[in-house]
Amino acid sequence: MAQQDVQNGEGGKVAPAVEIKAVLTQLVVPKADDAVKFYKAAFGAVELERSTHPKRKAEQERPLILSAQLKLGSSTFLVSDNTEDSGEPVNVVGSGAIALWLETHDIGAAVAKAVLAGAVSEGEITTGVFSDPEQPVGKVRDPFGFLWFFTSPVAKKAAAESEAPVTV
Amino acid sequence: MAQQDVQNGEGGKVAPAVEIKAVLTQLVVPKADDAVKFYKAAFGAVELERSTHPKRKAEQERPLILSAQLKLGSSTFLVSDNTEDSGEPVNVVGSGAIALWLETHDIGAAVAKAVLAGAVSEGEITTGVFSDPEQPVGKVRDPFGFLWFFTSPVAKKAAAESEAPVTV
Repeated sequence: MAQQDVQNGEGGKVAPAVEIKAVLTQLVVPKADDAVKFYKAAFGAVELERSTHPKRKAEQERPLILSAQLKLGSSTFLVSDNTEDSGEPVNVVGSGAIALWLETHDIGAAVAKAVLAGAVSEGEITTGVFSDPEQPVGKVRDPFGFLWFFTSPVAKKAAAESEAPVTV
Repeated sequence: MAQQDVQNGEGGKVAPAVEIKAVLTQLVVPKADDAVKFYKAAFGAVELERSTHPKRKAEQERPLILSAQLKLGSSTFLVSDNTEDSGEPVNVVGSGAIALWLETHDIGAAVAKAVLAGAVSEGEITTGVFSDPEQPVGKVRDPFGFLWFFTSPVAKKAAAESEAPVTV
């Protein structure tokens, strides 16, 4: 790796050179195995790999999931059991909130499929969320409390073209 | 699209055929412009595009961000202002929690850079989170309350190889 330091513009402090290869979103739930089944049924997720907790307690029905990697189209995300043993504080605190966006060509069918699998529809398919006022967006909340928006990849591209790209 | 219906295994109900193209994680914060600057400084994120709220209020210093798309390595995520106007309930409710994982070859430097930009380090770099007990993991919380883990892509691959892949 080239030893090229990066200025971050704060009082001349020099940040170390770091390359981030990828970012993965991890959903942490009380019963990860159930969540994996739900995301397969609701969104058609495909399980790529699963690592389980090495210490299996006698009272556990099945091994706890440290990380199940699910593929959705060109993207992947992680589903994990929320365990004290894993030593990970996982609650989101502070001012921020998270939503998850799914790109699909048939928003109505996607909402219907998710609801059939156990998600709760949150209102009608609406427009006006993007800068393109015609862009429809569907919305469901899954059994674990996460909010999923459905949007169209084509309309998203059109919205992007209406804004000049920002270079950094 | 082929009209191929999918069985979801629940009492013989037939779910509509839906193809999800991609999933994107959206971080919703009170000041998205500040958050974008932070993710650039902390992680080296690159802003690909930005769409702003069409209705700019007089009292606003700058237009509200509907969606800024940030690239981190091979991944992208969204940063948005939390506005009532956008009509999006964004709070995560229920049992689930979310964390974000960053893959990098130098975990120590990545934590140091994030802290220099304003993140708070949460404990030492530890091991034992993955099925590979030697796998080091660093952890920071950003100014908006989100938890970011740093891990190595190489060690992650090794952990995956220790488990038989699950086919669906």
